[in-house]
Amino acid sequence: MRTQKVASGAETTFVLVFEKGDDPVTELGEFARDEQVGAAQFTGVGAFSDLVVGYFDRGRKEYRRIPIPEQVEVLSLAGDIALDEDGEPQVHAHVVVGKADGSAHGGHLLEAHVWPTLEVVLVQPPQELRKRIDPETGLALISLPG
Amino acid sequence: MRTQKVASGAETTFVLVFEKGDDPVTELGEFARDEQVGAAQFTGVGAFSDLVVGYFDRGRKEYRRIPIPEQVEVLSLAGDIALDEDGEPQVHAHVVVGKADGSAHGGHLLEAHVWPTLEVVLVQPPQELRKRIDPETGLALISLPG
Amino acid sequence: MRTQKVASGAETTFVLVFEKGDDPVTELGEFARDEQVGAAQFTGVGAFSDLVVGYFDRGRKEYRRIPIPEQVEVLSLAGDIALDEDGEPQVHAHVVVGKADGSAHGGHLLEAHVWPTLEVVLVQPPQELRKRIDPETGLALISLPG
Repeated sequence: MRTQKVASGAETTFVLVFEKGDDPVTELGEFARDEQVGAAQFTGVGAFSDLVVGYFDRGRKEYRRIPIPEQVEVLSLAGDIALDEDGEPQVHAHVVVGKADGSAHGGHLLEAHVWPTLEVVLVQPPQELRKRIDPETGLALISLPG
Repeated sequence: MRTQKVASGAETTFVLVFEKGDDPVTELGEFARDEQVGAAQFTGVGAFSDLVVGYFDRGRKEYRRIPIPEQVEVLSLAGDIALDEDGEPQVHAHVVVGKADGSAHGGHLLEAHVWPTLEVVLVQPPQELRKRIDPETGLALISLPG
Repeated sequence: MRTQKVASGAETTFVLVFEKGDDPVTELGEFARDEQVGAAQFTGVGAFSDLVVGYFDRGRKEYRRIPIPEQVEVLSLAGDIALDEDGEPQVHAHVVVGKADGSAHGGHLLEAHVWPTLEVVLVQPPQELRKRIDPETGLALISLPG
């Protein structure tokens, strides 16, 4: 993954271009730690050689894993970054992908491999966002003050 | 729903975090009226316990209602806010959701219930946008001057 | 298509409203050339009367054409603009659409006709982005320095 800061105003905008084989969840997390990103929103398009998405099972309180082991177009990668209770940035990414027949699939992005590219624009506001564990689900959800 | 202004520059950026049971269409409309939002764009991810989407039927000139009465991941919530001919902010939201089998579905968002969270970033430019009724469809569409 | 600059800060934000019959790929390209857009990101919602999406066939190294000859809701239009090796702006757009049964489909957007509207927000950073031909695929991919 290569990155470039393309604008600095009230918010900072980065372009992130992932390379063949990159896992975007891992790389986005490393980017957030390296750049000390306390809050961000991102969107992107590209293609994956394979991925695993998650569907939250309310009964089991965990993500069911749905493997998609084929080349797909990334129609929409969308998500955000916020700090967990230990102050570590957490990436929350959802994805829509298109298969060879044009059908769309997706879920919470658990893992993926980019091929041949993934082009993401990430916008970082000056204020941090914080997550807190939701007791009912065990999930870390963004918690705004007030 | 809780909201936080996270950046103020040429545009103003808000983070909106919806809570269990919130209807995002209703709450976005109330937010827009309370904050006097004359134009905005938003994107978000999260999950719904159920929703109803619309598909515009060209023959009948109305939205056909498609209920999705199950827990889904919100893969992409995208839309905009503009003022109608009475100066009231109107929310136009489209959604892609993922079911337990990973298949994607969606439409014009008519109603939904958040569970457990919906995280939206809304960007408000300084200039208002206006809608005008399109005689052919009866829909209020954004109408730019010139 | 009508356009309006709605914010000018570190980045410039445009709203583009497409009219009945417009092809968004063609019009976005013309806009980018007219406004000398050296880099941009865009997202939008609306509806098409018909479209053709592409799926990149790794074996043939070309896009397979998938026609969708029916009225659909545009659930997510996402993409970017960058300069090719000749300095000409290239539009890279992916789309998710919803059919009358609520099922979602999509791919790399090759061509489409808007009906009745398509509302796009385009954000242009001050720095240009450049594409370079990837020898393995023959595709022009955004190439960041360093």
